[in-house]
Amino acid sequence: MHSDTRDRDTVRQDTSVAARTGTVVETVPVSTPDDVDHAVACAAGAAGRVAATDPRVRRDWLLALAEGLETAGTRTALVRMADTETGLGEPRLRTELARCADQLRFYGEVAAEGSFLGATVDHADGARPDLRRLRVPLGPVAVLGASNFPFGFGVLGHDTASALAAGCTVVAKAHPAHPVTSRLLGHVAREALTGAGAPAGAFGLVSGFDAGTALVRAPQVRAVAFTGSQQGGLALWRAANERDEVVPVYAEMGTVNPVVVTRAGALRRVEVADGFVGSFTLGTGQYCTKPGLLLAPAGAGFPDAVVRSLERAAPAGWLLTEGIARGFDVGTRELEEAGATVLARVPGHADGWSAAATLLQARAVDLRPGSRLLEECFGPVALVVEYDGHGELERVLRSLPGALAASVMSNGDDDPEVPGLVAALGTRVGRVAVDAWPTGVATTWAQQHGGPWPATTVPSATSVGAAALDRFTRPVTWQSVPDAALPPALREDNPWRLPRRVDGKQVPA
Amino acid sequence: MHSDTRDRDTVRQDTSVAARTGTVVETVPVSTPDDVDHAVACAAGAAGRVAATDPRVRRDWLLALAEGLETAGTRTALVRMADTETGLGEPRLRTELARCADQLRFYGEVAAEGSFLGATVDHADGARPDLRRLRVPLGPVAVLGASNFPFGFGVLGHDTASALAAGCTVVAKAHPAHPVTSRLLGHVAREALTGAGAPAGAFGLVSGFDAGTALVRAPQVRAVAFTGSQQGGLALWRAANERDEVVPVYAEMGTVNPVVVTRAGALRRVEVADGFVGSFTLGTGQYCTKPGLLLAPAGAGFPDAVVRSLERAAPAGWLLTEGIARGFDVGTRELEEAGATVLARVPGHADGWSAAATLLQARAVDLRPGSRLLEECFGPVALVVEYDGHGELERVLRSLPGALAASVMSNGDDDPEVPGLVAALGTRVGRVAVDAWPTGVATTWAQQHGGPWPATTVPSATSVGAAALDRFTRPVTWQSVPDAALPPALREDNPWRLPRRVDGKQVPA
Repeated sequence: MHSDTRDRDTVRQDTSVAARTGTVVETVPVSTPDDVDHAVACAAGAAGRVAATDPRVRRDWLLALAEGLETAGTRTALVRMADTETGLGEPRLRTELARCADQLRFYGEVAAEGSFLGATVDHADGARPDLRRLRVPLGPVAVLGASNFPFGFGVLGHDTASALAAGCTVVAKAHPAHPVTSRLLGHVAREALTGAGAPAGAFGLVSGFDAGTALVRAPQVRAVAFTGSQQGGLALWRAANERDEVVPVYAEMGTVNPVVVTRAGALRRVEVADGFVGSFTLGTGQYCTKPGLLLAPAGAGFPDAVVRSLERAAPAGWLLTEGIARGFDVGTRELEEAGATVLARVPGHADGWSAAATLLQARAVDLRPGSRLLEECFGPVALVVEYDGHGELERVLRSLPGALAASVMSNGDDDPEVPGLVAALGTRVGRVAVDAWPTGVATTWAQQHGGPWPATTVPSATSVGAAALDRFTRPVTWQSVPDAALPPALREDNPWRLPRRVDGKQVPA
Repeated sequence: MHSDTRDRDTVRQDTSVAARTGTVVETVPVSTPDDVDHAVACAAGAAGRVAATDPRVRRDWLLALAEGLETAGTRTALVRMADTETGLGEPRLRTELARCADQLRFYGEVAAEGSFLGATVDHADGARPDLRRLRVPLGPVAVLGASNFPFGFGVLGHDTASALAAGCTVVAKAHPAHPVTSRLLGHVAREALTGAGAPAGAFGLVSGFDAGTALVRAPQVRAVAFTGSQQGGLALWRAANERDEVVPVYAEMGTVNPVVVTRAGALRRVEVADGFVGSFTLGTGQYCTKPGLLLAPAGAGFPDAVVRSLERAAPAGWLLTEGIARGFDVGTRELEEAGATVLARVPGHADGWSAAATLLQARAVDLRPGSRLLEECFGPVALVVEYDGHGELERVLRSLPGALAASVMSNGDDDPEVPGLVAALGTRVGRVAVDAWPTGVATTWAQQHGGPWPATTVPSATSVGAAALDRFTRPVTWQSVPDAALPPALREDNPWRLPRRVDGKQVPA
């Protein structure tokens, strides 16, 4: 999930480029300032109506979007164009598109379930007035999706789906790594939403770097959602903090997601090495949850084992853009300059934005706060580091910056090191997995994707899972307000049949 | 609820000054940098233990704090000293202290109830792994309380109570408007918490302007809570945004809280005028929820009615500090320079930081975005503005910056203007009251104190009400983690007997 800022110099005009060949597919017109103003004005104009809609109606809109994506002809066209633009391969993209449709349905169900509204009623009690609290939609949300998941984190990905579910209108920016795919998704959205009866301003699409900047500055935009690089996310966060009326920027950004192998887990050396290679080279290493650092007990033969796994697998793929390919070259050199040495490098393809999957080794003592070794390098590259005993491992874990996810590779449920490692990693990340790689992110009620700063600008937020909706609401309390002037969700007869907290007690729908 | 930054030049050394006379009560030693480091280190050292404590045990700590405050001798000493330092009067301070104890108990009950943890369990389902999500305490929280509520928003006020309830340790800064009261509260806290078995680092107290700055910069501090002025809150927010690891600053700041009188409500002119005067001069106008702007229908005689009410009530009180008194003089002059004219000014007391309650009138046309007329002036001053018809009122409402609260004064439940006004004001504030003044803020499940920017740096947060705990947690997801390595709140047998969401369904405790 990566931003366009690294591509800015390369792809000035949303030129669609085939990742496998580096040849131009199509030049896509970029939005003019007037186009952006118009899209924002439409989103602002429809915001009240979308916010006032029963969430079950918005579920139907999201179901229509999912169906639109799954229409046979559309699906084929989307997967084919996304594969051309990204080089990620049709099988992966078919799965991703199906998951994108599932996400849309999931957020629709979360909206319909209604808990996200946090409806709370405290009846008057003696001198205490009647108080009723509800989370209300913020209004137009700007969505700046990711390069690496053209569907899952694209213009109809998690952010758009959860913002619509929460009752916000959306203006999404097409990603320059897949502008034609983005445009096709925009067509699907307009057709499906219109067909389902949503207002025209519920969803809009703009394109071009300047359009993204303009969205973040537009006074009517009430929140920004971004998935991508640290550099891109923090730039948006700073820009939003300069607004007259500051708005939240929910940026979830790529990190070095550490994997710790326990001493007993080292017995599973080959399996762990194979899994690590599979995970860090998945999607040509272009996952924000890529495990970028394997911490293995010294003397257990991990560097050699991972080298053998990498050479055996010999993964070859393409990076998404020329800018990302250049960033990968620079980044791997920087890792070497910071003290890492190359253990293995397997050749990629001959054409396009191909990348040579690279394994480096570094010393535990060099993993100090602020080191380049602890910053993400996007693409198929990872570090293996041997730790010498518990004390050294503890020191390294304390040095780790905040990350999205971490894994522990153990020798099963009785491994005595697991509880301590899970607890230690839990303070540094948003998700801890045991005997599972961090690259798989299911969309469920219990999922958390954001992690501590600098993984996420708002570490209490998540772009994946039911809580994704919470980002796009703010609570309002109504005090002594007559029933007829209350929003339906708070009226005494509960016409939306929501689960609510009444006088301190949870009351099911 | 106001900051010390406006007092900075006046009270350099936490000199306790009697508001009624301007004479020095006592000079209180200010914390050295070493003192602050020590307090932060203690808070960091105890953070793990406090976070791991069953929330019902933390409820007992909070109950002990409440009991400590209500011990007869302590209560008398606190109220007497607070009255000397603030001039707010013993009756008001007795009530505030009792409410402070109630708050501590309330947040304890919210912790014990356990919903704030958001425990969520998704069992493995086919290829989908077992995922479990929980909100975990952030760690040490810096609390910078308010000048105007030495108890309610003081060192043991809402922020400290909700942070402890959420499982965080606290380092509070004594407020220079009431340093001796703050110190006494610190003694009560240490004794009560030790007696209840809490770790020594659960709560610490520092004093001095530089100590506050040091807290916001301390790497171990994980969140900052502040109640006070725009100037103070935004300065802290900017400072925290400059940290290597940015942390949230929850600043809830004083605003111009508008009151709209409907045409039918104007029939209750005398009652509304009396209520308005009572509310804007309450606590010598030193409420962040003070109604600073009365919007009344033109021609209904409101300016005269409010003047008569003010002259009849002739409220007299003292401001908290010399700095606030100076700010009040400057602020009222600025309002005049921005186009307001003085309708009435009633003399205050002769001594100390007395303030003359002041009523100004402005033209609706001058209420433009960015006007000084729409910025808070702390103290007993308010504007009356007549609006000429619905169109002009609508324009004014659109010009209002975000505020904490707003009120509608109507002619009862059938007043046809109420629903529209409630809806319009709900987009600009965190709380809308009908036929009630904004200065009363009950501590309940449904309360919301924060409002849209610039009222609050995190508009989705609240410092009052059950959701106050949410500010001090962040979610973590555990994936495929063996039961023994899970936090108790997520274990299969639910040993803390928490309400949880399991496989998408709410399950009561």
